[in-house]
Amino acid sequence: MNIQLISESKLGSIDLNKVGFGSDFTDHMFFCDYENGTWKEPSITPYQPIQMSPASHVLHYGQSVFEGMKAYKNQEDEIFLFRPDKNFDRINKSAVRIAMPTIPEEIFFNGLYQLLDIERNWIPSKKGMSLYIRPVLFANEEILVARASQKYKFMIILSVAGSYYENPLRVIIADKYSRSAGGGVGFAKTAGNYAASFYPTNLAKENGFDQIIWTDPTHTKVEEAGTMNLFFRINNTLVTPPSSEKILDGVTRDSIIHLAKHKGIDLEVRDVYVQEIITAFKNNELKEVFGCGTAAVISEIKTIGFPDGQEIEIPVISEELSYAKTLKSELIAIQTNQAADPFGWRVKVEKTLI
Amino acid sequence: MNIQLISESKLGSIDLNKVGFGSDFTDHMFFCDYENGTWKEPSITPYQPIQMSPASHVLHYGQSVFEGMKAYKNQEDEIFLFRPDKNFDRINKSAVRIAMPTIPEEIFFNGLYQLLDIERNWIPSKKGMSLYIRPVLFANEEILVARASQKYKFMIILSVAGSYYENPLRVIIADKYSRSAGGGVGFAKTAGNYAASFYPTNLAKENGFDQIIWTDPTHTKVEEAGTMNLFFRINNTLVTPPSSEKILDGVTRDSIIHLAKHKGIDLEVRDVYVQEIITAFKNNELKEVFGCGTAAVISEIKTIGFPDGQEIEIPVISEELSYAKTLKSELIAIQTNQAADPFGWRVKVEKTLI
Repeated sequence: MNIQLISESKLGSIDLNKVGFGSDFTDHMFFCDYENGTWKEPSITPYQPIQMSPASHVLHYGQSVFEGMKAYKNQEDEIFLFRPDKNFDRINKSAVRIAMPTIPEEIFFNGLYQLLDIERNWIPSKKGMSLYIRPVLFANEEILVARASQKYKFMIILSVAGSYYENPLRVIIADKYSRSAGGGVGFAKTAGNYAASFYPTNLAKENGFDQIIWTDPTHTKVEEAGTMNLFFRINNTLVTPPSSEKILDGVTRDSIIHLAKHKGIDLEVRDVYVQEIITAFKNNELKEVFGCGTAAVISEIKTIGFPDGQEIEIPVISEELSYAKTLKSELIAIQTNQAADPFGWRVKVEKTLI
Repeated sequence: MNIQLISESKLGSIDLNKVGFGSDFTDHMFFCDYENGTWKEPSITPYQPIQMSPASHVLHYGQSVFEGMKAYKNQEDEIFLFRPDKNFDRINKSAVRIAMPTIPEEIFFNGLYQLLDIERNWIPSKKGMSLYIRPVLFANEEILVARASQKYKFMIILSVAGSYYENPLRVIIADKYSRSAGGGVGFAKTAGNYAASFYPTNLAKENGFDQIIWTDPTHTKVEEAGTMNLFFRINNTLVTPPSSEKILDGVTRDSIIHLAKHKGIDLEVRDVYVQEIITAFKNNELKEVFGCGTAAVISEIKTIGFPDGQEIEIPVISEELSYAKTLKSELIAIQTNQAADPFGWRVKVEKTLI
């Protein structure tokens, strides 16, 4: 690995308590280029602009897949990741669907571990805080032919996550726009899925909602919310739609399913119908609704709007009775080495050989 | 407009008879940046790499829309475009769906005309040849938040098209993968639609086909082929599926519809069923099948494969009886100022005020 370090960190000039999410980056970045069918020597360099051809394939044809991960640090300066093997597997599953080469395990993990070791001062040890990790693989051949690129760049960049406070969300059920097609790329964490979602989401925001709950083509079954997987608590049963070719197979979703079952919470992975949400609400059986994802871990949903203009307000539930709050707190405790890890999810970042 | 010209053209070092499509670019490029809600001063500079942040929004979230156009030149060194207003309208329709700002008419056309005037030596005047024009608008804010970017770059680059020879195509009807969803972005010329199509197309290629004929969610109606709109000639009637939110509203498609009607060819814009193609073939009523698009104008389809493994071979038709060959030849004649233009489609590029 080529390693070129900066002379002075910019960490001192940043107030970590004031930064937002995803706009401040650490001193260094990792990258590795792919061409002629092989991966080249990987590099760590200062975080800096990259030179791209105006005909770079990704700018025109959107071959890009990425992941979102977090690094945590304890008071002993030990660095932890949460189920990084899931992110590694998923970026490669996404890559296959978008006709890109898969990333070798040693390039992904050596690069990630070495970069985190160099940037360890950027990882906050304060409770609930973390460093956001963005692995991204994109096409970089200088060509306008509409076929898969023959050159790619894999990068890992790190971003200060800041504190993540969030109000309970107002979401609206989609009845016109769709996020993905059956036989499409909904399950892949690929650039185009996000680009396609912004316009309908902006319309929802104009109507006072934070996110959209995407539905199936008949708009009768719920799929996911914004970029989060969804859970509904009906009485004391958690229900969540199955992952499919249309739904991102979330790492946090999977962890919640395991953790809930481990805690003895009744949980069903099955189709969830728009109508049953309304019925459960009317019968006072809809106790909680939440989304989950890497960024906020669990985001509680307060209001659900329906296409006919109807809105339902999920009743407030006390902290100790809330599945969302309990699961979030326990998940964060596992992630940050503050609780036992019966699932073997926490991975300590060791200095790696290069 | 800022204009910075190169000192010596690289045109002399390129053999225009040997270049392929989309990999050789002219001396200059046009660009205009958008930020803080406004378009900045546009520029023409040497064609050169652009500096991009590794966190540039487009690399992660795929906000990119583009167009494909061609410039033609006659022996009198006059430059012509073909229905450029359609491309201008469509890139802005695409931009709206992808939550991007629209491009002002004067920026699009002043930039395009000025760039073509500077690069006029690159436009071939040989019959059937042209210069390919690629306008592209993409997100360029340095941020990882999954919402629409607040900075954009609009560019026009020009690529030597080379001669475009093509064998009749072998296509296969899709029965598993989809190109777009109802309520999705299929009608938009956006990067992610292309990224999503490469993997299924590669599978088709492995099975000996050139392209996929995309179908509706039930896989009973045909939509478009690869990146082309589709026409079927059943006896002496041309049928083509209607444009919709799932299908790109092709400029060549629209032109063929007008030209065919003008020539008195019976033409129906209506749903086209997979089963009716098979039935028409069995009854010896399927006379021609072709796709159309900016690159090849019209591409004849020789073989159609069906999901059950069945293949049909469209019978060869003589040149003078072929709708595909006649329409292609007449369309190219209009495009290149070799025939009258009853539709007012041809636009002469005049030197523009800047």
